[in-house]
Amino acid sequence: MAIQALIFDVFGTLLDWHGGVAREAERLLHPHRPGLDGGAFARAWRGRYQPGMEPIRQGSRDFADLDTLHAESLEEILAAEGLSGVPPETKRDLVLAWHRLDAWPDVAAGLARLKQRFLLAPCSNAHIRLAIAHARRNGLPWDAILGAEIARDYKPKPAVYLKAVEALRLAPGEVMMVAAHSSDLAAAAACGLATGHIARPDETGPGRGETGPSLPVDVAAADLEDLARLLGG
Amino acid sequence: MAIQALIFDVFGTLLDWHGGVAREAERLLHPHRPGLDGGAFARAWRGRYQPGMEPIRQGSRDFADLDTLHAESLEEILAAEGLSGVPPETKRDLVLAWHRLDAWPDVAAGLARLKQRFLLAPCSNAHIRLAIAHARRNGLPWDAILGAEIARDYKPKPAVYLKAVEALRLAPGEVMMVAAHSSDLAAAAACGLATGHIARPDETGPGRGETGPSLPVDVAAADLEDLARLLGG
Repeated sequence: MAIQALIFDVFGTLLDWHGGVAREAERLLHPHRPGLDGGAFARAWRGRYQPGMEPIRQGSRDFADLDTLHAESLEEILAAEGLSGVPPETKRDLVLAWHRLDAWPDVAAGLARLKQRFLLAPCSNAHIRLAIAHARRNGLPWDAILGAEIARDYKPKPAVYLKAVEALRLAPGEVMMVAAHSSDLAAAAACGLATGHIARPDETGPGRGETGPSLPVDVAAADLEDLARLLGG
Repeated sequence: MAIQALIFDVFGTLLDWHGGVAREAERLLHPHRPGLDGGAFARAWRGRYQPGMEPIRQGSRDFADLDTLHAESLEEILAAEGLSGVPPETKRDLVLAWHRLDAWPDVAAGLARLKQRFLLAPCSNAHIRLAIAHARRNGLPWDAILGAEIARDYKPKPAVYLKAVEALRLAPGEVMMVAAHSSDLAAAAACGLATGHIARPDETGPGRGETGPSLPVDVAAADLEDLARLLGG
């Protein structure tokens, strides 16, 4: 079955969340903690990401967006770091650090090539307004914003992939999920989607990322320009 | 309250549905009815548009998209016209005529200017895949695709406007509904949105369209480039 559309994981696959959040945390928290290790702070914050979504996935909490979950987990991180005097406006600005992430260098050119042959949309846990911020900052040429907010649930729940496929009016096998995380691709494959892996070996700092998929995939690429080549774009 | 985003009606406001459907109906039905009056056919088909959505608005039918509703109303029109021998693939192609509509000449340049200052999204009764087709064909630079499919209901139900506002994480007063139909603007205004009217005096053929709003609006413009000027873009 010919691939008609590519849907993308965003955090790590397209955007350098680790570098971006580290940079903003060091800048915004400098008055409170000079010399903060921004990378460690970013990793600790992201470490609370999966547990924060879990009650929503399990149905014990109504859908809440990533700004809400990031604000909640930020309180935990600041408390754990002993940073008690950070004012509300700085906390708000820290949450918005997730809106000010930069794309990896291959992303803009790769997506521009892929757009000539495929429909393109994010299928991320980011909500629509957050995805708009990412697209505006980095020139991501989306045809539509799909993902968690459409499904009102979080990956890797099947509804998130299947609602994206439904919005595109395609069959699952006509849609390829593209991600730098094998777990994301495993969940998409279980829904019948094709899979494309992107290597991001330094996603969370040097040597902290997937160099290749840990499961069989349809395409494994070094970056998005390589993906365009491999898909004949 | 400063306007942050503009959301748009599409059929008639941005796209010439009347001319496009007339052209495609004359072309596709030529073997069955040479000399068909495409404009009259388009108006008759569109005439079944509001009644088709009504059971969904009233909650007596689950959400069904415009391709589905157009396919149903096409059967009625063909029967009324005495066109009984049209094959299924031609009917399918006629439904897809609504995907192949052209924008009015001012739209691409106007949206490009407006995008520099505002978030832009359609808030149409078109579903996501149909909106993607419109955007791809006409270069509509949407930040996201909002409207009926997100709300799983049809304008002028308040949910369609309010779900669009919610997805943008704005207050209703920060969002302007832009339409060539006063009834659409009246419904948006009742939800607290700002309103912008676009004159399309020839929407359904010469002299068959609104030359101006029939209610008080925040801005009344001659076309999208005029709207950009009036909003200071």
